[in-house]
Amino acid sequence: MEGVDYLAQERNKAGFDVDSMKIVWYGSQRDFDINDRMAKLVASDPVFSKENRTMLPRKDLFKNTLKKAAYGWKRIRELNLTFEEATKFRTYIDQPAFTDLHWGMFIPAIRGQGTDEQHKKWLPLAQKMQIIGCYAQTELGHGSNVQGLETTATFDPKTDEFVIHSPTLTSSKWWPGGLGKVSTHGVVYARLLTDGQDHGVHGFIVQLRSLEDHTPLPGVTIGDIGMKFGNGAYNSMDNGVLSFDHVRIPRDQMLMRVLQVSREGKCTQSDVPRQLIYGTMVYVRQTIVSDASVALSRAVTIATRYSCVRRQFGSQNGGPETQVIDYKTQQNRLFPLLASAYAFRFAGQWLSWLYKDVTDKLQANDFSTLPEAHACTAGLKSLTTSATADAIEECRKLCGGHGYLCTSGLPELFAVYVPACTYEGDNVVLLLQVARFLVKTVSQLSSGNKPAGTVAYMGRAEHLMKCRSSVERAEDWLKPSSILEAFETRAFRMAVACSQSLSQFANSEEGFAELSADLAEAAIAHCQLIVVSKFIDKLKEPIPGKGIKQILEVLCQVYALSTLHKHQGDFLATASITPKQAALAFTQLRHLYSQVRPNAVALVDSFNHTDHYLGSILGRYDGNVYPKLYDAAWKEPLNDTVVPDGYKEYIRPLLKNQLHLAKL
Amino acid sequence: MEGVDYLAQERNKAGFDVDSMKIVWYGSQRDFDINDRMAKLVASDPVFSKENRTMLPRKDLFKNTLKKAAYGWKRIRELNLTFEEATKFRTYIDQPAFTDLHWGMFIPAIRGQGTDEQHKKWLPLAQKMQIIGCYAQTELGHGSNVQGLETTATFDPKTDEFVIHSPTLTSSKWWPGGLGKVSTHGVVYARLLTDGQDHGVHGFIVQLRSLEDHTPLPGVTIGDIGMKFGNGAYNSMDNGVLSFDHVRIPRDQMLMRVLQVSREGKCTQSDVPRQLIYGTMVYVRQTIVSDASVALSRAVTIATRYSCVRRQFGSQNGGPETQVIDYKTQQNRLFPLLASAYAFRFAGQWLSWLYKDVTDKLQANDFSTLPEAHACTAGLKSLTTSATADAIEECRKLCGGHGYLCTSGLPELFAVYVPACTYEGDNVVLLLQVARFLVKTVSQLSSGNKPAGTVAYMGRAEHLMKCRSSVERAEDWLKPSSILEAFETRAFRMAVACSQSLSQFANSEEGFAELSADLAEAAIAHCQLIVVSKFIDKLKEPIPGKGIKQILEVLCQVYALSTLHKHQGDFLATASITPKQAALAFTQLRHLYSQVRPNAVALVDSFNHTDHYLGSILGRYDGNVYPKLYDAAWKEPLNDTVVPDGYKEYIRPLLKNQLHLAKL
Repeated sequence: MEGVDYLAQERNKAGFDVDSMKIVWYGSQRDFDINDRMAKLVASDPVFSKENRTMLPRKDLFKNTLKKAAYGWKRIRELNLTFEEATKFRTYIDQPAFTDLHWGMFIPAIRGQGTDEQHKKWLPLAQKMQIIGCYAQTELGHGSNVQGLETTATFDPKTDEFVIHSPTLTSSKWWPGGLGKVSTHGVVYARLLTDGQDHGVHGFIVQLRSLEDHTPLPGVTIGDIGMKFGNGAYNSMDNGVLSFDHVRIPRDQMLMRVLQVSREGKCTQSDVPRQLIYGTMVYVRQTIVSDASVALSRAVTIATRYSCVRRQFGSQNGGPETQVIDYKTQQNRLFPLLASAYAFRFAGQWLSWLYKDVTDKLQANDFSTLPEAHACTAGLKSLTTSATADAIEECRKLCGGHGYLCTSGLPELFAVYVPACTYEGDNVVLLLQVARFLVKTVSQLSSGNKPAGTVAYMGRAEHLMKCRSSVERAEDWLKPSSILEAFETRAFRMAVACSQSLSQFANSEEGFAELSADLAEAAIAHCQLIVVSKFIDKLKEPIPGKGIKQILEVLCQVYALSTLHKHQGDFLATASITPKQAALAFTQLRHLYSQVRPNAVALVDSFNHTDHYLGSILGRYDGNVYPKLYDAAWKEPLNDTVVPDGYKEYIRPLLKNQLHLAKL
Repeated sequence: MEGVDYLAQERNKAGFDVDSMKIVWYGSQRDFDINDRMAKLVASDPVFSKENRTMLPRKDLFKNTLKKAAYGWKRIRELNLTFEEATKFRTYIDQPAFTDLHWGMFIPAIRGQGTDEQHKKWLPLAQKMQIIGCYAQTELGHGSNVQGLETTATFDPKTDEFVIHSPTLTSSKWWPGGLGKVSTHGVVYARLLTDGQDHGVHGFIVQLRSLEDHTPLPGVTIGDIGMKFGNGAYNSMDNGVLSFDHVRIPRDQMLMRVLQVSREGKCTQSDVPRQLIYGTMVYVRQTIVSDASVALSRAVTIATRYSCVRRQFGSQNGGPETQVIDYKTQQNRLFPLLASAYAFRFAGQWLSWLYKDVTDKLQANDFSTLPEAHACTAGLKSLTTSATADAIEECRKLCGGHGYLCTSGLPELFAVYVPACTYEGDNVVLLLQVARFLVKTVSQLSSGNKPAGTVAYMGRAEHLMKCRSSVERAEDWLKPSSILEAFETRAFRMAVACSQSLSQFANSEEGFAELSADLAEAAIAHCQLIVVSKFIDKLKEPIPGKGIKQILEVLCQVYALSTLHKHQGDFLATASITPKQAALAFTQLRHLYSQVRPNAVALVDSFNHTDHYLGSILGRYDGNVYPKLYDAAWKEPLNDTVVPDGYKEYIRPLLKNQLHLAKL
């Protein structure tokens, strides 16, 4: 029954224009067009098929990844794609590969930390892929604490070289993607030792493999670190281990934009502001927030469509059973995640504006907004990636037993996504950075400092400490002002409570350590406020399209009220709302679900994901789930033969009670 | 540095006797001895090595599983193990296999639903493994709703046979373990059709494969359903798909203990009480609760030991960095999970007592306690499996980046565990069953019915509706009575609130559907109370051993107060405690962490897990993590060659700008 749309009835129920929503989701017609074109280009090319990916042994998977990367690069050049198009093209290939690190970390590191001469020498080579680079920072014994890295780069003034060395086992580079089997070069982070002094950690361009035969250069030991979580997933990437035995590189391969080492081995700080590094972190983290919304949207698409296809219980007089999406428990788990996808999307769009704003200011030597921008990107990175990882697994559970099959797409989506909670700043470490900023902001309120940006609400300290929510009926919770005030009150009072607890410690660092669990919770409250308020701000803009604004308002309310319900302990403990008001919020949330229900499939269609990108039989656009699940089973390699390999050696002797004779 | 105990310092800090705690964990000296002997027997046998499991392609993994199963059976017979020992022995092989279903579902189904003659015919064959059986219940389109199964068993009086048939695609059996490639027989659930009537779903013994050459019998189509979540994990199991094309079986292969079909095709109900089925469910679910505590204990062991080995930040004057277990955020995430492992363990021990109690009563034709026993096992199954699945993933995150490696053991533990949330009753469906029971209990209070067992507290309705917690200082939260009253008050008031909301609906089933999210939360509150109260009860028993009782008291408090903190919204919304009391609870919890900290490693040593069973480099008993991680990397198949397969086809042409010439 190819070509039949089993979800057509669902699609007919929608109260808004899906094409308009696609533009809202992608940010602009132009962004939609690029994404749509690139996604379809990849989806229609058989080389990029993901069909048997989760069945492939590691070596086959890796070779397949090399093929996709090479073929992808060939197509990018044949089609003469722009940089932006090429980036999207690679995204839609949807298979982690060395190219991610080459384009996403190696080149930006050189661009950000290299001098003009270094740019001239290395960027053209990298941009034509005549060299392939990785980003070798973390070590076996050192992750979050970059300043604790052990690899050394000792300047030898006799030869004008740095000697790169791994002094211990724990100093082995460990994890860098693309390192294990592919990269010819790496930006290697090492302690700069010169003049008998340790000048801290800096980046060095180091060639790792021969450009002729790909063997590691003398003194370089490299390998792949082995299997990671999940089928397919990140196992297409050659995360690597690397150690150096006194490897020499010319002095001009230290990235010297910020610190220069002279021919004599003297260090000089350049006048390039160090804050630029924070600018880069803001950039990277805003892309992570945007990626979180995409990953979440994929999981939600699968769970929503399948929840419409799947029926269980509730058959009346032999008629069909109830669609599981009609159960309130299903809605109560699923719809807040659907709303979160939109909420995170708008938070991401706002962050990309923030990045531009920060960059403009940096270029005008205005560093004033940097701490606030840094705190809010760190916080939103932590909040959205943790929520997305949990949400993908929840979507898998929402698909019942079949969600456990790789063909559901969800196991791989989960396994490939979870590292986002750890890389680019462990999520708990980041929350504590946010908390530090909040506590500092609170402490400066009395000195008349006017907080700005995402902490501007703290300027209304007096009001927030004494205000009481005016909600009396469930409908009152639909007002953005009610929601905003409750979230602001809660966040502010939690930050103030932390500050007060901290002040009882003689040593503030000890206090910070002791109270870190409370501080992390205060940081979450603040970050959730940001997401809610950016969603509300978004709705103040004119948004064209039939019914768009109405349904987005519903999603905003669902996000806010489900978050409030989940964290009602905070709201009640800070007396931001009363128990009665909390109950009204939950009642209102239930009413909202009824408004989401008819729009659910259209809301996930608006993400515009191709079946290729989703990679899920349960999430197929046409809803034709069961026949395709059935067909897919027969592609399992174990089904190559009716009688399995091992029957003669193990099963038959068992059944025949002849194991004592068998060779085991 | 083999033989060095890197965690010796941690072990020296313990304030209690680990050997005594092992007895407490296993329930008795005898149970400890059996587990200890079986675990070591498996661990010391190279055939049972799990070392490269997560790297094996599916076919190799499956063949390896067949080997372990056959060899395991051979050893069981050679060693003349008792049934109990053999069961443990298979547990410690720790690789899901067809034998799990044969012993755990096929044989019990025949025993429970078969007549004496059927026992006599089939059990000896199965117990000698001359036939291998599976349990074929769920279908492609039908999971939780057993009454919705589509497979038919039509009685043909002409030949005295049943005709087993799959009328639709969605009626294909789907998921049964051991079915895909191994089982020779199955207990197949099908709608009994006789006399032109549908008599509902019953079990039938059906031969599936030839005992001579293992090919499927005529009319039987079988295969494996393909890859499931994770590396290794459940992919060692041949979950299968099965459909029947008018397959005939003799009438005496219907399991007829409860319902008999005569030669003429007439149905007669036997006088065996149908409630016996619930007795079996109580049994299966209590083992699931016990298994949850074991899975959780494995994850917690890995995270605890590695948190002591791992150091990050906080180096003073070039000294070692801080052990990550000393961070309060780490403690606040890890110690509640450690406490949960013990809490679930004692809940499981109590459930096994409950099962015996119920069985005794059933044999005396006393069915009075069955609904309560059924509700509390359903609820505890749901609570403990959901919490354990989340906890394993949290433990993985607590191990930072290295937790993402398969060699950490945690990815596989997660992937192999999560189905427990879905099988034997979807966790949300179960919570709603509990809620139904609670609401019913509340409704009967006014009629003077005295609730007993785990709902006995509801008998004190008047007190619980008006009582106020007397906690004034943080230490007051150490009193079991304070904890118990708070949990009882919260659970009771939530159940009452649900009942009141329900009474506002004209149609109570509609109300139940509409309020199901609230009802599920009330059920969770009730189940958490059970866990807390059983832990408190346990501590009223005499428990010998130095320091044992003291540290168990601490764990009980940690479990209760961390649960209270996590769900403080419930406690505050029901006014069971005040915001001030909630804050005191969190303060007290922080103090308790300091008492757990020196005992942490000893508390996980008390689980007595072998390194084989843990299967984790991060969780090694000796703490020698980094050298072993490093060594393990080189066993990755990709490292068989220095230059990877695919270099010539894909990497070299890319670097040499010759992709246009390459065959892609």
